[in-house]
Amino acid sequence: MESYKKLETIFTKVYRLDHFLGLGNWDMNTNMPPKGEESRGEAMAMLSELRFGFITAPEVKDLIESATKGSDKLNAVQRANLREMKRAWKSATALPAEFVGRKMRLTTQAHSVWRDSRKANDFVKFLPVLRDLVALAREEGAYLAAGTSLSPYEALMNEYEPGITTQKLDEVYANVKSWLPQLLKDIVQKQSGDAVIAFSQKFPQDKQEALCKEFMKIWHFDTDAGRLDVSPHPFTGMTKEDCRLTTNYIDDTFVQSLYGVIHESGHGKYEQNCGPREHITQPVCNARSLGLHESQSLFAEFQIGHATPFIDYLTTRLPEFFEAQPAFSQDNMRKSLQQVKPGYIRIDADEVCYPLHVILRYEIERDLMEGKLEVEDVPRAWNAKMQEYLGLSTEGRDDVGCLQDVHWSMGALGYFPTYSLGAMYAAQIMASIRKELGDDKVDECLRTGELGPLLEKQKEKIWDHGCVYETDDLMTRATGETLNPEYLHRHLEARYLKA
Amino acid sequence: MESYKKLETIFTKVYRLDHFLGLGNWDMNTNMPPKGEESRGEAMAMLSELRFGFITAPEVKDLIESATKGSDKLNAVQRANLREMKRAWKSATALPAEFVGRKMRLTTQAHSVWRDSRKANDFVKFLPVLRDLVALAREEGAYLAAGTSLSPYEALMNEYEPGITTQKLDEVYANVKSWLPQLLKDIVQKQSGDAVIAFSQKFPQDKQEALCKEFMKIWHFDTDAGRLDVSPHPFTGMTKEDCRLTTNYIDDTFVQSLYGVIHESGHGKYEQNCGPREHITQPVCNARSLGLHESQSLFAEFQIGHATPFIDYLTTRLPEFFEAQPAFSQDNMRKSLQQVKPGYIRIDADEVCYPLHVILRYEIERDLMEGKLEVEDVPRAWNAKMQEYLGLSTEGRDDVGCLQDVHWSMGALGYFPTYSLGAMYAAQIMASIRKELGDDKVDECLRTGELGPLLEKQKEKIWDHGCVYETDDLMTRATGETLNPEYLHRHLEARYLKA
Repeated sequence: MESYKKLETIFTKVYRLDHFLGLGNWDMNTNMPPKGEESRGEAMAMLSELRFGFITAPEVKDLIESATKGSDKLNAVQRANLREMKRAWKSATALPAEFVGRKMRLTTQAHSVWRDSRKANDFVKFLPVLRDLVALAREEGAYLAAGTSLSPYEALMNEYEPGITTQKLDEVYANVKSWLPQLLKDIVQKQSGDAVIAFSQKFPQDKQEALCKEFMKIWHFDTDAGRLDVSPHPFTGMTKEDCRLTTNYIDDTFVQSLYGVIHESGHGKYEQNCGPREHITQPVCNARSLGLHESQSLFAEFQIGHATPFIDYLTTRLPEFFEAQPAFSQDNMRKSLQQVKPGYIRIDADEVCYPLHVILRYEIERDLMEGKLEVEDVPRAWNAKMQEYLGLSTEGRDDVGCLQDVHWSMGALGYFPTYSLGAMYAAQIMASIRKELGDDKVDECLRTGELGPLLEKQKEKIWDHGCVYETDDLMTRATGETLNPEYLHRHLEARYLKA
Repeated sequence: MESYKKLETIFTKVYRLDHFLGLGNWDMNTNMPPKGEESRGEAMAMLSELRFGFITAPEVKDLIESATKGSDKLNAVQRANLREMKRAWKSATALPAEFVGRKMRLTTQAHSVWRDSRKANDFVKFLPVLRDLVALAREEGAYLAAGTSLSPYEALMNEYEPGITTQKLDEVYANVKSWLPQLLKDIVQKQSGDAVIAFSQKFPQDKQEALCKEFMKIWHFDTDAGRLDVSPHPFTGMTKEDCRLTTNYIDDTFVQSLYGVIHESGHGKYEQNCGPREHITQPVCNARSLGLHESQSLFAEFQIGHATPFIDYLTTRLPEFFEAQPAFSQDNMRKSLQQVKPGYIRIDADEVCYPLHVILRYEIERDLMEGKLEVEDVPRAWNAKMQEYLGLSTEGRDDVGCLQDVHWSMGALGYFPTYSLGAMYAAQIMASIRKELGDDKVDECLRTGELGPLLEKQKEKIWDHGCVYETDDLMTRATGETLNPEYLHRHLEARYLKA
C-alpha cells in the first residue's frame, strides 16, 4: 500500500507537468507570437525530459514490483491504476536512449523531406527516408514487443490502442470490406439525382462563433472549466479541469467551424468527465484509448450531429444567427450535410468513405512492417486499393495519394486504425443507447436538441470509467459485446440508403 | 570553468521552468476559466518546488565555491553572472523550510483578514495579524541578513533592490521631503484656476485597443515577440522571447487603457532587450532590480508620455480613433493629463504625489521593523504623515489609509521603496539623455512621436547591461552619478511650475 501511495505521488507530479505541457501546446497553437517559438520549444523539451525522468527513475521499477506484490490490498480502481502505471512505465522504459535520439533525428529530417516531396509530387524523393522510417518502426516495434506475445506492428498499435491485435483488426476490416465498397456505390447512385443549393451569403465570424458557443451549450460543455479559441487546426487540449477546444472560421460556410466544434465538444465532454474523478491526477482517469477518444468525438459529430432529426433542429436555429437564404431549407440542409462523395483526401472524407481510407493505410502499414510490401511499391499498392475501395486513381498523383499524411514522417505507424475504430465504437454505443432508451426517445432528443439523456448514457457507459476497465471489457459492459463492425454497417445503411 | 558551465546548465533549466511559471501566471490572468484555478495552483506550486530544488541542490553550493575559486578564468559578463547566481542561491537557501511553510500559512490567512478588514474599515481586526506579519518580517530579515552587514529591513529591501541601504534611502527621502510637500502646494495653487473639460462621449473598446496597439508601435514594441491582452490589473509577463502586456478598458476614457499600455510598454521594452542577449537564459540577463524595472515603465509613462510635447502629439492622433469632442483641444488635453491632485489612494496618484505616498509607507515600515513604532500606532502615524505630506486626513478611514495596500498581508515589507526609486532613476536618466542629445532633439522626438533616438539611449544606458553592473555602477555609467533625487525635483518643477 505504501509503495502504491508513493507511485500515486509520482504520477500526480507527472500530471502537473502534463498540465504545463498542455498549456504550452495550447498557447503555441492559439496565441504565441512567432519569435516565441524557439524558447517554447526548448522549454517544452526540458519539461518532457523531466516528465520522462519521473517515470523512468529506478525507484519506480521497485515501487511497481512491490505494489504488485501487495496488490491484494488494493481496491479495483487502485489495481486498474497500477496496471496503467505499469503500462506507462513499460512504454517509457522500452526504448533505449540511443534509439530515442536516433528516432528524433530521423523524424525531424523526414518531416521536411516529406513536406518537400508532397509539394513536388515526387515520391522518389521520399523513398529513402521512408525506407529508414519503416526500418526504425520495425526496430521500435521489436523493443515494445519484447516480453509480450505481440508482433512488432501490434506493439506499435498498442501504444495508441491498448489491447488491439492484428487478428482482430484483420477480421473487422475484412467484414467492412465485404460490404462498404458496394454500399458506397449504392449511396452515390441513390444521391446522384440530388441537387444541393450552395450557400449564397458570407457568414461573419462573430456570428459563427456565437453559433459554435450555442452548440457547446447544447452539448452541456462546462464553459467554467474550458474555453473555445481559434487555431489553424481544431483540437482539444490542456487538462481535465480546464479543457480547451479550438476551431477556425472561413467566410463561405459555418459548417466547418460548427462541426469542428461539435467534434471537439465530443472530445471535451470525455475529458471533462473522464474516470472516477477523485483520482483525477492518476492514469486511471485518462481516456481509455485514442480509438475510444475518437469514438466520443465521432458520436457527437456523426451519431448526433449528422442525424437527420438533428440537422432539422440545427436548421431551425440558423435564422437566429444568419440572414435567411435559399440553402437554409430543411431538405437542402439534409442533402448538404449528408452528401457522400469519394475523394482523395482522408481528412476531408465523409463518414461513409472514411473507413476505406483507413483500411487502405492499415493494410499498407501492416504489410510494410511484416516485410510483405517493399517501400518502393507503396504508390502502386495505394493506387490499386484506392481503385478497389473508392473507385479513384492516384496514378501520377502521390501528393494526394501516399504522400498526403504526416504520420509516417513522424514515425507514427500504427496510429491510423484508431480513426476507424472510433467510428465503429460510436455506432455500437449508439445502437446500445437506442436499445435502452428506445428509438422514439433518442429521435426526440435529436429533434429537440435536448441531448441530456444521450449524454447521461455516454457518461454511464464510457466517461465514468476512464481506464478502470480495458477496452474489450468496457465495450462489453457498455454494449453487451466487444467491437462489432456490423453496427457501423447498419448505421450507414439506415442513414444513407433506407431514409 | 567546468563548474561555472555546470551552473549555467542548471540556471538554464531554472529559466525554462520560469517560462512555464510565467505562462501559467499570464494565462491565469487573461484566459483561465474559474474551475481551472485549483489545478493551476497545484501545478504552479509543484513547478515552484522543482525550481527551488534546482537552485538549492547540494551540488550548487559546491559548484559556486569551485567556480568562485576559478573566477580569474571567467570574463566580466561571466563573473557578473556568477555573482547573480550566488545571489539567487543565497536568497533561496537563507530561509529554513519550516519558516517558508510558516510564512505561507500566515500570509494566506492574513490576505483574507486584510481583505475583510479593509472592506469593514476595521483596523482592529487586522491588528493581531499585522503584529504577526511584522514579527515574521523581522525574522525573515534576520535570516537574510545573516553573514552580511545589512540590517534586517535592509536585507528585505535588498531582495527587491540589491545594494540599497537605509542610510541612502533616508538621505534621499529627507531630500525629497525638504521640497516636495511645498512643491505640491505650489502646483495645486497654480492649477487652482484650471477648468478641465471632461470627456463627453464613450470610447468603444475596439477603438481603444487600436489606439493602444498604435502606441505600442510608437514604442517600437516587437509584436512578433509579444502580445497585448486584457486582464483585471495591467501587467507585463511571460518570458524575454515572448513578452506579454495587458491592460483593461473602461467606456468613459481611453486614458486608463492607453497609459496602462504605455507604462507596460516601458517594462516590455526592457524585457525584450535586457542584458547581453547571447546569455538570455542566465541571471545576468535579468532586470537589474525592481526599481530599475519601474524606472523604465515610468520613463515611458511620465518622462515621455506625460511630457507636454508628447501630449500634443497624442492629441493630434486622437481623431484617427475617436469622434471629435470639445475635450480634445490641445490645451484641455494638457490640463487633463497633467492635473495634480492629492488623494488617498497610492495607485491612483499622479507623479507629484506618488513619492510622498511611498515615503510615508517606507517610514512606517522601517520604524516597525526597528521597533520604533508599535503596530497599534500605525493608523495614527499614517494620519499624521498623510496630513504633513499630502494635506489629507485619514482619521476614521483606515480603509483608504493604512489598509489600502495588499503588500503587508503578503509579507512583502521592503517593496514600496522600489516604486519611488523608479521615478527618480527615470528623471535622472532623462536628464542625462537630454544632456547628450540636446533638449531640442529630445523635444522633437516627443513632439513627433519618433521615439527612436530616446529608445536607443535607453538601450545603450540600461537595457544592454542587464545585471552586468550593480546598480550604483550602472547608474554612474549611464548618468555620471549614483541615485540623486535632485533630477526628479528639477523635472517636477520644470513640468508643473515653470511651464
